[in-house]
Amino acid sequence: MDHDAIVRDSFARQAVMGLIGASITRVERGRVEIELPFRRDLTQQDGYFHAGIVSTIADSAGGYAAYSMMPEGSSVLTVEYKLNLIAPADGTRLTATGSVIKSGRTLSVCELRVTVLDGGEAKLCAVGMQTVFCLRR
Amino acid sequence: MDHDAIVRDSFARQAVMGLIGASITRVERGRVEIELPFRRDLTQQDGYFHAGIVSTIADSAGGYAAYSMMPEGSSVLTVEYKLNLIAPADGTRLTATGSVIKSGRTLSVCELRVTVLDGGEAKLCAVGMQTVFCLRR
Amino acid sequence: MDHDAIVRDSFARQAVMGLIGASITRVERGRVEIELPFRRDLTQQDGYFHAGIVSTIADSAGGYAAYSMMPEGSSVLTVEYKLNLIAPADGTRLTATGSVIKSGRTLSVCELRVTVLDGGEAKLCAVGMQTVFCLRR
Amino acid sequence: MDHDAIVRDSFARQAVMGLIGASITRVERGRVEIELPFRRDLTQQDGYFHAGIVSTIADSAGGYAAYSMMPEGSSVLTVEYKLNLIAPADGTRLTATGSVIKSGRTLSVCELRVTVLDGGEAKLCAVGMQTVFCLRR
Repeated sequence: MDHDAIVRDSFARQAVMGLIGASITRVERGRVEIELPFRRDLTQQDGYFHAGIVSTIADSAGGYAAYSMMPEGSSVLTVEYKLNLIAPADGTRLTATGSVIKSGRTLSVCELRVTVLDGGEAKLCAVGMQTVFCLRR
Repeated sequence: MDHDAIVRDSFARQAVMGLIGASITRVERGRVEIELPFRRDLTQQDGYFHAGIVSTIADSAGGYAAYSMMPEGSSVLTVEYKLNLIAPADGTRLTATGSVIKSGRTLSVCELRVTVLDGGEAKLCAVGMQTVFCLRR
Repeated sequence: MDHDAIVRDSFARQAVMGLIGASITRVERGRVEIELPFRRDLTQQDGYFHAGIVSTIADSAGGYAAYSMMPEGSSVLTVEYKLNLIAPADGTRLTATGSVIKSGRTLSVCELRVTVLDGGEAKLCAVGMQTVFCLRR
Repeated sequence: MDHDAIVRDSFARQAVMGLIGASITRVERGRVEIELPFRRDLTQQDGYFHAGIVSTIADSAGGYAAYSMMPEGSSVLTVEYKLNLIAPADGTRLTATGSVIKSGRTLSVCELRVTVLDGGEAKLCAVGMQTVFCLRR
């Protein structure tokens, strides 16, 4: 099973990623990275990336990290996640990383990290945890 | 203080709401509702609303519910939130409601509920909890 | 199936409930209540109920609320929970209520509420959300 | 400021730690570890450590990790936390570690990890995230 191709193929079918301009920049077994350049139409009232947009790429990064470890033919669903927004998402690019902490038969648990590139420095702006469900055929 | 006008004014400055097509449909003191019609470019790999899009309107609904109870001149920041996606967001329109459970001097806590309109019936698809920070001038 | 007896029987086997002095005071289908009188040896550094003790009864209340809706012979496991401590747990008795929001085949989601009795008044001190796993025989 | 002594002194005033038999085994700036040997009266219905007991030491480990970085004379309060119970807490000893991810003026965010010693091996059984409030004099 080529988990890289399967993850990238599913990502390509997430139409919202095209809308916001996100791309998948790294796929390893149990670890996926998604990047999103700043655009004015992704912001909240103060001009930073909206927390929901931060969540959108964090959720997909975690979901695909879990998916990369699932048996062929599985589907992945987010059960729940929690995100702490520890600094304003103020910068030119977001990078979300999802890493599998526990890969189970039915449930997986992922750690989520989002950094924002601000004047050349990647600053941690959100940390989270996610539970993902594996639907088998 | 006209909390309705202040909330709607800030919402209008959330550029991402224009991008996804969300509108604020109800503003009460401590309770705000946001609606979002289905569009193909808001979906995940199975054609449902992406969890991040569900989160985007849920986070704003809660943030503005808290904001509607803050003193004039405050700013609002999401500290953290947690969302359980209890059913596929499969339908023609999402409605997110944020309701304040506790409004404190510095921190407020909100309950988040998102329903999806599916064949005339509003089905609960996400429930969450959110902590919001009040920045005073 | 007598869900009341099955829940009370399992609760009686939670040895920690005896240690802290908690009792189950209400069992309905999808809703369970647990009470805990104040004792000095349940406190944190300021003399209030420790957040972990608040969690202990909240987690069991939610778990048993979910369990009361599961098929006979199931076992219940907490997948995860999140608790917001919205006021000091300062008073003479805690009451935790778990209510099922969604009862699924494998996963259930519960709302958790904890009040503290303070001078005759029950004050909300914690709110939470919990995901529970149903293990079938 | 001797953060080690201040943390250990506050821990000694958490009466619940005496009740359950927990001890603080490591205090560094931004990182605290608490251990808890197995006892039959700390268990849930299947004979494992109850999730609330896991939470009790995890919450204190995180709270004290944050406290160890606060200015002298501060008080610490848990705002909220979320815990994923990724394996049964089945073993002879729990070790909870709280590590500060972000230490802010008012709010800090900690990562929580709990392992259970099972046949000589420390197995990760819970992971969490916590938000802590710093009350200044």
